[in-house]
Amino acid sequence: MDQEDLRVDEMRLWQAIETLSACGATADGGVSRLALSDADRAGRDLLCCWLRDMDLQPQVDAVGNILALFPGEQADAPVLMGSHLDSVLNGGRFDGAAGVLAGLEVLRTLQQAGRRTLHPLGLVAFTNEEGARFTTDMLGSQYFCGDLDLDAARAIRGLDGNLVGAELDRIGYSGDLPGGSIRPRAYLELHIEQGPVLDRDRIPIGAVTAITGITWVEVTLQGAANHAGTTPMDSRQDACLAGARIVSALPGLAETIPDQRITCGMFSLNPAVINVIPGEAVFTVDLRNPDPERLAEAGRQLTALVGQVAAQSRVRAHTRLLGHVAPQVCEPDLVAAIESACRALGCESRRLVSGAGHDAQIMARHFPAAMIFIPSRGGVSHSPLEYSSPEDLARGANVLLRTAVRLANTP
Amino acid sequence: MDQEDLRVDEMRLWQAIETLSACGATADGGVSRLALSDADRAGRDLLCCWLRDMDLQPQVDAVGNILALFPGEQADAPVLMGSHLDSVLNGGRFDGAAGVLAGLEVLRTLQQAGRRTLHPLGLVAFTNEEGARFTTDMLGSQYFCGDLDLDAARAIRGLDGNLVGAELDRIGYSGDLPGGSIRPRAYLELHIEQGPVLDRDRIPIGAVTAITGITWVEVTLQGAANHAGTTPMDSRQDACLAGARIVSALPGLAETIPDQRITCGMFSLNPAVINVIPGEAVFTVDLRNPDPERLAEAGRQLTALVGQVAAQSRVRAHTRLLGHVAPQVCEPDLVAAIESACRALGCESRRLVSGAGHDAQIMARHFPAAMIFIPSRGGVSHSPLEYSSPEDLARGANVLLRTAVRLANTP
Repeated sequence: MDQEDLRVDEMRLWQAIETLSACGATADGGVSRLALSDADRAGRDLLCCWLRDMDLQPQVDAVGNILALFPGEQADAPVLMGSHLDSVLNGGRFDGAAGVLAGLEVLRTLQQAGRRTLHPLGLVAFTNEEGARFTTDMLGSQYFCGDLDLDAARAIRGLDGNLVGAELDRIGYSGDLPGGSIRPRAYLELHIEQGPVLDRDRIPIGAVTAITGITWVEVTLQGAANHAGTTPMDSRQDACLAGARIVSALPGLAETIPDQRITCGMFSLNPAVINVIPGEAVFTVDLRNPDPERLAEAGRQLTALVGQVAAQSRVRAHTRLLGHVAPQVCEPDLVAAIESACRALGCESRRLVSGAGHDAQIMARHFPAAMIFIPSRGGVSHSPLEYSSPEDLARGANVLLRTAVRLANTP
Repeated sequence: MDQEDLRVDEMRLWQAIETLSACGATADGGVSRLALSDADRAGRDLLCCWLRDMDLQPQVDAVGNILALFPGEQADAPVLMGSHLDSVLNGGRFDGAAGVLAGLEVLRTLQQAGRRTLHPLGLVAFTNEEGARFTTDMLGSQYFCGDLDLDAARAIRGLDGNLVGAELDRIGYSGDLPGGSIRPRAYLELHIEQGPVLDRDRIPIGAVTAITGITWVEVTLQGAANHAGTTPMDSRQDACLAGARIVSALPGLAETIPDQRITCGMFSLNPAVINVIPGEAVFTVDLRNPDPERLAEAGRQLTALVGQVAAQSRVRAHTRLLGHVAPQVCEPDLVAAIESACRALGCESRRLVSGAGHDAQIMARHFPAAMIFIPSRGGVSHSPLEYSSPEDLARGANVLLRTAVRLANTP
């Protein structure tokens, strides 16, 4: 029953990454494997083929989530491992794929060693995590958890005009596994960090304690368009200047709130003419914090900052909430189990917050869930330059193996 | 010989403004009288008609500048008054028109009183001052001064695809007055301020001492596009933030340099996505100063500021000169003559710098030249809301009358 001596096959895992990367490969070494595209179908077919080679029957639900169960001594709720196979346009080879293939490697390792856990282990590849083609991201995990209705999911129209339902039918991944028929006892997702911390500090494993909450705000400033030459500096109602003052103050705002991230990603002026003082500025602010209270506090401070600078700059201000996703805390027992596995493997780990959204965020609303991060070279993701080494992948897969086995052997 | 008792006819001047405003009138009370358009032809025809009614023969040069001479006792170089008749699209009734019609009113007043000056007086309406249709602004005065060749002028293509030459021929204003045949002893231009100072401080007359110099700079900042959620605040190379810091510092830069104006009119990001740290920011800076040394100093300080903030923000910076127009000082004797006329009329005046370009700027390179500003309500121009009162116009025309007569009677 003890599987503590087991280690994944680093080379086999790396070859799986390389083989899957051929599905939607781009000339510059990345992949474009948009959800439900032909490239996605190729990747799905490959995964199903590998599962059948192990005599595991892939099951597909109505939105194309692919699931496989590795039997335990008891036929009860499994410990589920997984992530997604879809990528963004011109993305990298590791985002999503690493988690699915690490889970597959865990199953291969157990099977090869002839080991079996108390409870079943499961593998899942969720549909359309990225939202790059069909903008409802984490679509598959939302459907899996019952947060998204099948009719609504099938009716989502992609940026190319095609419907989720029609594309599922076209690629042959409208399956018949009933929604809600698998209720995992835990969900573990290995993923590349997509940030620079582990790589920069040479820490091989991140134990994700929470997935950040996100608030998107649009700020509109109304001043008065006027002549750049004839309007004295002290008579201006310069919307661009007011906007620049607010944006400049954002890092200072972030410093006052632990774990706060804040970004201005869009900034536009009207008029936008070289010799006219802009009468209107519109910009967006992306606020992220893993703590809901702190995220709300950041929102309040932003509103106060906008009001204060607008008054000083003699412009009118209007803020509008464009979106909000609540933070999600990972299950502390699972985080502790990941850290314990790292210690047993002699591998340093650090507690991290995920600044990006993941399927685990949806799963954690309904099931105990946690994430294992591995380093992203230079923090780069969603790019052909995305890279994690074979060693990093294998180390992460060993932590996943040990954690999943421990959980699956816990009565 | 003394014409100090003369005053213009306020009502006649106002009626001329109203009548000319019918040429290219817009529904909202403004005018669209783009250079060499049918509306411009109507305005030109009206001016020529009024001149002929006075038995003054309008003369037209090869680029359509309309000139008329009011004979003096000596048939020598005239004191020239004028401005332009063209407007921007959806412009106002006073920009340009006020100066031409005030000059006409001066001639009408003298003629009605049967007075004559020592030297001739002249009136000019320059072609295409605005540059709104044919983007070479101050085209007529540039040709008049010999700064622009006739072939080059005629070959300028407008935003609507038509050529200056073809449009001059079409509206019948390719005249035969030889270029350079009139060399004024002085040029006086009455114009609306197009800024808020006179209106705000209730000063009826501005004596323009200089026309501002302009330097246009484009700043490009190169950081690194990155994930707004996963990139720690202290690991960012945020081009938007660096740009905002520079723009925020522009008013402080202006405060250190007398008469400095500085404006960011365009600001764009790439990528411009709500959840991505922008990797590139491009913005423009419009620097204006009537003193060439100070304008150069402002340019040096901007370069230093950009370099300093870029280094602090860990982005690369590149600045590019997009344009430069040297400042033009007005003839001090003429400025003094305008102030003297104001005093004699019991009318307060203030020395001002023109923050906008004018035909007088071109003329002042070659002839003694100065400008008389009258208040613009709210500082608004290039808008149907542009307004100067009948009293303001008449006061300005009286200052013009007195100054022109004094100059034309100076042996």
